[in-house]
Amino acid sequence: MAIDYKKELENTARSMIFVHDPDSLIKSIVRMIVSKAKITHASFFLYSRQKQGYLLTVSKGSLGKKIPLDLICIDKDDVLVRFLKEHKSAPIFGREALVYSQAEIALKNTKLKQDTKSQLAQVLYQMELLDAVVCVPGYFGNELLGFLLLGKKDSGKDFIGEELNFFAALNSNVAMAIKNAQLFKELEYEVERKHQLFVRITVAFAAAIEAKDHYTRSHTSRVTNISLEIARRIGQKSKRSLDGKFFENLHIASLLHDIGKIGVPEYILNKRSGLTIGERNRIKEHPMIGVGILKPIKELEGSLLGVRYHHERFDGKGYPEGLKGDQIPLVASIISVADSFDAMITDRPYRTALNKADAINEIRHLGGQQFCPRVTNTFLELCEEGKI
Amino acid sequence: MAIDYKKELENTARSMIFVHDPDSLIKSIVRMIVSKAKITHASFFLYSRQKQGYLLTVSKGSLGKKIPLDLICIDKDDVLVRFLKEHKSAPIFGREALVYSQAEIALKNTKLKQDTKSQLAQVLYQMELLDAVVCVPGYFGNELLGFLLLGKKDSGKDFIGEELNFFAALNSNVAMAIKNAQLFKELEYEVERKHQLFVRITVAFAAAIEAKDHYTRSHTSRVTNISLEIARRIGQKSKRSLDGKFFENLHIASLLHDIGKIGVPEYILNKRSGLTIGERNRIKEHPMIGVGILKPIKELEGSLLGVRYHHERFDGKGYPEGLKGDQIPLVASIISVADSFDAMITDRPYRTALNKADAINEIRHLGGQQFCPRVTNTFLELCEEGKI
Repeated sequence: MAIDYKKELENTARSMIFVHDPDSLIKSIVRMIVSKAKITHASFFLYSRQKQGYLLTVSKGSLGKKIPLDLICIDKDDVLVRFLKEHKSAPIFGREALVYSQAEIALKNTKLKQDTKSQLAQVLYQMELLDAVVCVPGYFGNELLGFLLLGKKDSGKDFIGEELNFFAALNSNVAMAIKNAQLFKELEYEVERKHQLFVRITVAFAAAIEAKDHYTRSHTSRVTNISLEIARRIGQKSKRSLDGKFFENLHIASLLHDIGKIGVPEYILNKRSGLTIGERNRIKEHPMIGVGILKPIKELEGSLLGVRYHHERFDGKGYPEGLKGDQIPLVASIISVADSFDAMITDRPYRTALNKADAINEIRHLGGQQFCPRVTNTFLELCEEGKI
Repeated sequence: MAIDYKKELENTARSMIFVHDPDSLIKSIVRMIVSKAKITHASFFLYSRQKQGYLLTVSKGSLGKKIPLDLICIDKDDVLVRFLKEHKSAPIFGREALVYSQAEIALKNTKLKQDTKSQLAQVLYQMELLDAVVCVPGYFGNELLGFLLLGKKDSGKDFIGEELNFFAALNSNVAMAIKNAQLFKELEYEVERKHQLFVRITVAFAAAIEAKDHYTRSHTSRVTNISLEIARRIGQKSKRSLDGKFFENLHIASLLHDIGKIGVPEYILNKRSGLTIGERNRIKEHPMIGVGILKPIKELEGSLLGVRYHHERFDGKGYPEGLKGDQIPLVASIISVADSFDAMITDRPYRTALNKADAINEIRHLGGQQFCPRVTNTFLELCEEGKI
């Protein structure tokens, strides 16, 4: 066994801990083993909690041609698995791999107990079915994470002790890398879970606040969808594409843009007749009330711009600050168009809804006055394509 | 160099990838090196982004006695660091470690350029100050994550090539384990960040809803604190201590217990005169409105019990379901006491606040009728100790 391919395999095993996907990790190591160590085929069975068994995760060589991946699942109570688990601490073959030819010899040993013999015979039959001459278990602590099955060497010769020890050491590295990858996956899943929890509670609150404003049910989710659609298109068209952070900020800002309405008296929000100037001014407070609610949350800083400025106008006649043109952050300009469009096509206390075509015309007409021209054009483009 | 301690060190290095704290990881490996390889001292300098330099993270042996930890920080532009970075791809000493005695010989080489010579001389001076005869860098890709400094061998002999290669390989494992640990830390931090974001947005919403109910400002945060205090004490006293999940559920449920008030008309919440039966029934809807708002969020299932049942009474005369005694979940019984107590000591539209002593007496009096006796007793105990 030449030292160079050992070295190569060791290096692969070492860098494995940065592959956080168990499947691709196993794939690369099995491919390496087959090609570098010149073996007819090799396969790896990885424990799956879901299936309560060991799934054929990858297979290279002749076996791979015969058996489709994911079709073989060896049950956790299978005789081979039980054998590998029971013999973990005291391997009866003196090394950390189960070798077919040595097991055959052991089987002829008259001192062997009858039940051990019958178990061993079943194990060998299992190996025959899988066309394997060596089985290398991979443990983490007392857990059997998986096992590697090796076919014959291309040369037809038997594996020597040094080779078997090497594969055992290699497989123990693989097992650790798998465990590491699994821990990573779990943590990544946890991050995603927490993020979803945040998004869901935000959606729930937005919906609860909308429920107070009888005329705007589902308004928030429609505004959010339209805003994201506009942003995606702007991102595709610009030289400097909008980054993930921008989309996250826009997403949260669209969900929360009207949050400040919780501070506006219900009778004003639901008034059927015309509003007095005083009442109109109370409504105009909602962006800053929203900012007040969200300001203590440092992480939402980027989204605050959208909440604060979604009623600014391109011509400077909006509120709360009367910002003009490029002074208005893009995130707010996008929400402004989406919010106005959805308000137009919905019945409001003081007027009935416009039809969609009229609302689109109205937005076109107000481009450059109320709305940022770039956002308006993108919006109109999406409407023409039937995407809004 | 005996094979057994190499094996031992290799095994340590292998299991390192499950130590997700870089400091303890380095500590264990340096301790092993000093004791197993019989070296007077060894130290490891780990890169700190915050300090923009390499911090002495652990030190064993004579150097450790002389220099307090964390006192030495080698700047990222230091001559030794620059040398290790520049010679990464083509080490001038033929192996992946910088050896003092060999550098001394190189220094006498007349072919060496003057500026290289002067750099090398400074590097050697630096090693002298640190009492090191070997310096082993640990890279991840092109990044110098840290370096290991070794003192003399106890035997006084020089390190041989095989030993140096071994330390280089070992240190490369250490570097990878450190990188792995750092990635884990970042992910863990991300989980915590997302969790905090969820808690903060929930607090913000609760505060916004309270702001509508003019008489209950800060009620939510006080109820949450009292509830958690009661739960901690119950946990200390019970045989089966309450688990982290229970506290998380209670925390969220206390924050959200009155969320359904958003669905109760403002004029009822703020009514100064007595409520009609119809109005009282509208208020009694708030637990189920809260459940309706939060139900779509699967992850909040455990907290829903607290929102739903915080107005149930131990004697079965509460709402919405009239549950009795042990039918009422503990999380709801705790919130019930905390909520009622805080309501008593606050001015309400229909009455002024009780003083604290009277409120405590009232709770005592209602134990076993309105309130769960176990929770009531724990509450009273905490009051006596001045903890509430």
